[in-house]
Amino acid sequence: MTLPRPLRPAPDGGGIEILDQTLLPHEERWCRLGDVEAVAEAIRAMRVRGAPLIGITAAWGMALAMQDDPSDAGLAAAARRLLGARPTAVNLRWAVERIRSVVGVVEPGRRADLASREAARIGEEDVAVCRAIGEHGLGLLRTLRGQVTTGHPIQVMTHCNAGWLAALEYGTALAPVYRAAESGLPVHVWVSETRPRNQGWLTAWELNRAGIPHTVMADNAAGHLLQGGAVDVVLVGTDRTAANGDVCNKVGTLLKAHAARAAGVPFYAAVPSPSIDWHAQAGAAIAIEERSAEEVLTIRGRGPGGAVAEVALGAAGTPAHNPAFDVTPAALITGLITERGICPATRAGLAGLFPERGP
Amino acid sequence: MTLPRPLRPAPDGGGIEILDQTLLPHEERWCRLGDVEAVAEAIRAMRVRGAPLIGITAAWGMALAMQDDPSDAGLAAAARRLLGARPTAVNLRWAVERIRSVVGVVEPGRRADLASREAARIGEEDVAVCRAIGEHGLGLLRTLRGQVTTGHPIQVMTHCNAGWLAALEYGTALAPVYRAAESGLPVHVWVSETRPRNQGWLTAWELNRAGIPHTVMADNAAGHLLQGGAVDVVLVGTDRTAANGDVCNKVGTLLKAHAARAAGVPFYAAVPSPSIDWHAQAGAAIAIEERSAEEVLTIRGRGPGGAVAEVALGAAGTPAHNPAFDVTPAALITGLITERGICPATRAGLAGLFPERGP
Repeated sequence: MTLPRPLRPAPDGGGIEILDQTLLPHEERWCRLGDVEAVAEAIRAMRVRGAPLIGITAAWGMALAMQDDPSDAGLAAAARRLLGARPTAVNLRWAVERIRSVVGVVEPGRRADLASREAARIGEEDVAVCRAIGEHGLGLLRTLRGQVTTGHPIQVMTHCNAGWLAALEYGTALAPVYRAAESGLPVHVWVSETRPRNQGWLTAWELNRAGIPHTVMADNAAGHLLQGGAVDVVLVGTDRTAANGDVCNKVGTLLKAHAARAAGVPFYAAVPSPSIDWHAQAGAAIAIEERSAEEVLTIRGRGPGGAVAEVALGAAGTPAHNPAFDVTPAALITGLITERGICPATRAGLAGLFPERGP
Repeated sequence: MTLPRPLRPAPDGGGIEILDQTLLPHEERWCRLGDVEAVAEAIRAMRVRGAPLIGITAAWGMALAMQDDPSDAGLAAAARRLLGARPTAVNLRWAVERIRSVVGVVEPGRRADLASREAARIGEEDVAVCRAIGEHGLGLLRTLRGQVTTGHPIQVMTHCNAGWLAALEYGTALAPVYRAAESGLPVHVWVSETRPRNQGWLTAWELNRAGIPHTVMADNAAGHLLQGGAVDVVLVGTDRTAANGDVCNKVGTLLKAHAARAAGVPFYAAVPSPSIDWHAQAGAAIAIEERSAEEVLTIRGRGPGGAVAEVALGAAGTPAHNPAFDVTPAALITGLITERGICPATRAGLAGLFPERGP
């Protein structure tokens, strides 16, 4: 694969460079984040997004904070600033706490270097986790492929972007798709545009870059496609998964899960272990982020002149409601694809793969 | 209510004037349609839309055609042109066939006048049908209201626009909402934006005009809202209802029906009898219109300068799939609200209200 990683340390070591995802797919612009404040803003504004990438970016935010103020107070302030950026993706908390626990036990003078090395390690671990999810998912696709008519590509439906752009490489839900393409297994992806922020267009952008056949549709079309037999499997990511297997993911995931269940189509979530919240006993315990009404009232695209423009869809001041996530009950989920294998979406299933997290 | 009818005969009798719904909610522009060709174009381009209004407009198209060429050949050509404009809404066929059967039996010289009078009659009948649906639906809302906490407005979720703009007055799914507002029953409407063409913004526009509280959300948010208990009842329209109660309506309706069923929320379709296809034994018999990929790839809104602008959401040439409708199985539907009352979504239920259509 030839896709760039959407985050890299700046050559001078004094910041990180990110591919600004609010401008994709229209414009590929890298921006430099030089301090924790810039990192928090980028997470909040979704210049970086996707649970794994949010975690990695936050880890780098902690590292940059340690360059500026490695005191205990500086450490606490950086963690507070980053944790407040977005409430739902648990990877954010996981990564911030990991950096804090690693650097908190050494003297301030050693913290900046240690934090940078730990942030880089979190990134490389994430790549390995995504690759492992891809391998397990590829096995699943091969099995499903054996059940469908040969000669046709396997039809995958996804939601939002849980791909290369949501991590450093491969992504989560799309990792099996990339591994399938690398292995010569024909695959076609149904891409849901994912209003209000249209991350489906990020998925289309990266699949196009990778040369993987795909078709974009309105979110509303998912039920019709599933009902009509156009889809062999639904693969989605997760922003936070509860200990019982309930999956919190981009809003609209729940609708696809209902429709997949009704159509008898298997529905899998790709779940890297850092996105499991072992403290959340069920999805109902997860706080759902409410984002600005402006995201519903407006949309961004490329205007007739070629420049990126924002247009208003309705009258200014129209009341709008904008929950960013929803919770798909475990009962609707065929299985969870983790880096350690695929398990049922149950407490026992997760505990079987991660016994060290058990009671 | 003070909303204008979205279609009116031109004062000179040589055409009709329509409120161009492709420009709403941004601009209220009336356009004159002077011949059958202009009418067919307006239906195809969705300048008029909504099953009842499509039927009424098509009837006027037939009348205008009779002014230009009242011969048998002219009659047949006009019917052919209009029937090809959009394939799914059965009202179109119903209205065209009705005009054809009324004027086909008289000499060409009398056809223009007769067709105009019949088109006007179809419009007035439609208004009466919508009012009757509103009355029956109001009774339903009152009953549901008795089951929810008093002091709160009844929470209605709708999809697309099956309101005033989709008919001449009141609309179908929104008729009970307008009657509730007129009767002093507090009501709040959850409006789904309804990508790809965003007819939800038409619903928001007309509810705002009527002073009825409403909130717009992304289509993706419907599952979360239903799951969370925010909705008391889902009310949708229909473009074609099969004899067994399967409801074909704007794409995305099916997803709401699944989510409503899972949440135990009643789901009703407002079904004027001209939108019942007694020849379709089940929804599977209904041809689903595929519209241009451009509707998915682009979106229209008001630009920063105030003018209506179209922006591209993804890269040009991205493959996109755009089914305009889906079929909600009768088993997911709590009931059908017709002008003759509310019935179960079953063959027996419909036959009980419309015994003259029985075998």
